[in-house]
Amino acid sequence: MPDQAIEKMSDEQIEAGLEKRAEWSGVGGQIQRTYQFGDFLGSMAFVNKVAEYAERVQHHPDILIRYNRVTLTVSTHDAGGITQKDFDLAEEADRLAG
Amino acid sequence: MPDQAIEKMSDEQIEAGLEKRAEWSGVGGQIQRTYQFGDFLGSMAFVNKVAEYAERVQHHPDILIRYNRVTLTVSTHDAGGITQKDFDLAEEADRLAG
Repeated sequence: MPDQAIEKMSDEQIEAGLEKRAEWSGVGGQIQRTYQFGDFLGSMAFVNKVAEYAERVQHHPDILIRYNRVTLTVSTHDAGGITQKDFDLAEEADRLAG
Repeated sequence: MPDQAIEKMSDEQIEAGLEKRAEWSGVGGQIQRTYQFGDFLGSMAFVNKVAEYAERVQHHPDILIRYNRVTLTVSTHDAGGITQKDFDLAEEADRLAG
């Protein structure tokens, strides 16, 4: 059986996924959210938690750190679009951001 | 006396600084370099070293992590341009990248 997790989602599935993650938006075949923290150290603490998760599941978001703001941008290269793995990462990142 | 470190550099000074840092380039009033590592963990190790330096000197680059590549973008907001602090950070980051 094919791995469900790496099947590219349809536009309708992506819309439905984004409705459950209000802070995330779809941009050019990727999903993205910017988090805000108290300071740079807050950003770094979050980034290290996300990095640990990303490495564990072998799915790595692009991470942009701008002092107290962190932007995660996620897509699944192997599937050429957005998959359930991207929404799993979004959910975990939201949880880690507390 | 004014702090020399936060005086905005002239175009000529920036050119001279970039000549000494061949991997760095000037882009829109900032200086930037992309480093490449063996993998994501290599990127994260570098980013954490840069973050420690940045916090110590209270001068924070924008940091973009894309799997095994890290882009640092630096300018001095207080001076409205590029200063010696930016080149100090560039020098230290190059050293930390090994």
